[in-house]
Amino acid sequence: MFNNRPHHGGNLAWAAQVAGCSPFALLDFSASISPLGPPPSAIAAIQDGLLQLAQYPDPQYAKLRQQLAQHHHLAPDWVLPGNGAAELLTWAGRDLAALEATYLLTPAFGDYGRSLRAFAAHQQAIPLPLTAVASGKIDWLTVVTQGLMHDPARCGLLLNTPHNPTGLLMPLSVLETLLSLFRLVVVDEAFMDFVIPSEQQSLIPQIARWPNLIIVRSLTKFYSLPGLRLGYAIAQPQHLKRWQQWRDPWSVNALAAAAVTVLQDHDFQQRTWQWLGEARPALFQELAAIPGVHPLPGRANYLLVRCDRSVTALQQTLLQRDRILIRDCLSFPELGDRYFRVAVRLPEENERLVDALRRVMT
Amino acid sequence: MFNNRPHHGGNLAWAAQVAGCSPFALLDFSASISPLGPPPSAIAAIQDGLLQLAQYPDPQYAKLRQQLAQHHHLAPDWVLPGNGAAELLTWAGRDLAALEATYLLTPAFGDYGRSLRAFAAHQQAIPLPLTAVASGKIDWLTVVTQGLMHDPARCGLLLNTPHNPTGLLMPLSVLETLLSLFRLVVVDEAFMDFVIPSEQQSLIPQIARWPNLIIVRSLTKFYSLPGLRLGYAIAQPQHLKRWQQWRDPWSVNALAAAAVTVLQDHDFQQRTWQWLGEARPALFQELAAIPGVHPLPGRANYLLVRCDRSVTALQQTLLQRDRILIRDCLSFPELGDRYFRVAVRLPEENERLVDALRRVMT
Repeated sequence: MFNNRPHHGGNLAWAAQVAGCSPFALLDFSASISPLGPPPSAIAAIQDGLLQLAQYPDPQYAKLRQQLAQHHHLAPDWVLPGNGAAELLTWAGRDLAALEATYLLTPAFGDYGRSLRAFAAHQQAIPLPLTAVASGKIDWLTVVTQGLMHDPARCGLLLNTPHNPTGLLMPLSVLETLLSLFRLVVVDEAFMDFVIPSEQQSLIPQIARWPNLIIVRSLTKFYSLPGLRLGYAIAQPQHLKRWQQWRDPWSVNALAAAAVTVLQDHDFQQRTWQWLGEARPALFQELAAIPGVHPLPGRANYLLVRCDRSVTALQQTLLQRDRILIRDCLSFPELGDRYFRVAVRLPEENERLVDALRRVMT
Repeated sequence: MFNNRPHHGGNLAWAAQVAGCSPFALLDFSASISPLGPPPSAIAAIQDGLLQLAQYPDPQYAKLRQQLAQHHHLAPDWVLPGNGAAELLTWAGRDLAALEATYLLTPAFGDYGRSLRAFAAHQQAIPLPLTAVASGKIDWLTVVTQGLMHDPARCGLLLNTPHNPTGLLMPLSVLETLLSLFRLVVVDEAFMDFVIPSEQQSLIPQIARWPNLIIVRSLTKFYSLPGLRLGYAIAQPQHLKRWQQWRDPWSVNALAAAAVTVLQDHDFQQRTWQWLGEARPALFQELAAIPGVHPLPGRANYLLVRCDRSVTALQQTLLQRDRILIRDCLSFPELGDRYFRVAVRLPEENERLVDALRRVMT
């Protein structure tokens, strides 16, 4: 059964089979989704949107683009909505494949490899020094420049900040230097909205300065709606126009388009930042206090954890004994069987995880 | 305002502006969607599906594939669901672009050009003889073989049956001959389910015989849910596996996946066939009785109509005087300003169209 291990955290069917229970009975720490559940404002917008299902979406998505653009103080043609961030990564992969090589910071989100392989891009890994990552002291520019095998002016760079799976937030100053070096930089900010606004290091306010920058955002992690599929890209319009010519005209469903009103749900946003601002440091400290368990100092809504024991065995025990699912890191070759990733969940849920881990490790 | 004319029938915002009313006040004959509205069974399934929005869809879509496959008496790996048929056409375009040329029967559905251009395919048109089409007597094989400029064994063929915009249903025997000639045949059966089952000429029962066949189906026209986005491809598994490696893992949203239960709604299917079986011949006859208006004998839920007057002017009059939107054919270069297409709608709605047309034409 463990041979059929899925490559992505969200596959609950497999985990439920191992645990011998319904998927709904699992406590899922594997998918990095907000535990607050979809905001009622989103569900209400989707319900209202049911009336629009009998019509094709507007192929230009004029209203949706305006809503997204307004949120970021941009003109609508600088924003392109997509069927989740993953659809937009497909087209980013096609742009990157036209370059001499594309650099990834590894361990890297698995779907980057998919999008680059889809167009036969030449991938080049820059391994993150995990000890430096764990200490929170990483000399980004040295790491990147020492990892270069080509002239970056002919190459692409595809990264996320906060980085997945480490949770590291890349400083804006580093990103600016990288933008001045590389031909094309695709920055996936899928988890940026989990960082409290005063600490975010988003490139969106600088988009006008960088014709070689494409930013990808997700709306379905923060708002706990990954089944709905809604992401967007931000870039100078010529990039987005090209993507529109490639993809089909109706890639965003009408209910996802309706749900964009969550951007106005400031209450939900405040509740999220308040929850995470308390829950993540608490979870970090409790994990760090367990012998053999070493969380890395992540800034997103998940923590990467080094573990002195086999994670495959640990994952199985937690599933079968506690119905708790953690994300193993076997799909990241650089991490292997001694790392796992956990979403930050509600305090009482995090307690269940900590208790269960403590029982196994001590 | 007419310079901003949209390329697809579904763009109601533009039409509402011309008509000077709300999009909801328009009677829309331009989009070829069932007028029966989404079946209550679909809305109920979508409502139930709201609970699943907080989880990622299963990247393998095991349950959805099983439901689709069972409907067609196939194994699940012969079916790949997509974000509408249009997403699947994107990947079909990529496969076709690898061949020496891809033949289209023109006038052709506009999105075929998009998907082929996206991958720089060499397109070759085979013009349908519209007089033969109008007479209902068309020698398909002569038309196709006389249109060939390459060895078809090195070429692709992309067509729909029923054909859009003419509504012609291609006989299975013709399709079989074409399959024996061409390297790859992509058959878009987006409107096949509107044909009553005893008259359908679907290739699905023959899929196992043809490794060079890919069938694309839509679930959102018949069930009046184009905003939801759900289509599927049927082909030998190696084709579909390749597409899965190209596209992102979560292309079908959870609510579309939930709505697949409409396949069980036999009542709705019967009501649809009963409505169309009466409404289309009636509309055809009434249109044919109007001077200067010449409907073609289509078999789908729409009719292509030749008109002795300028359709641009006719469309504007109908919008401004009657709030009725017909589909002009300016986006089909072979048709131009003397053809329009209308969806078959409910009897009283069709009456409104016929009355309005009669007033303009006589």
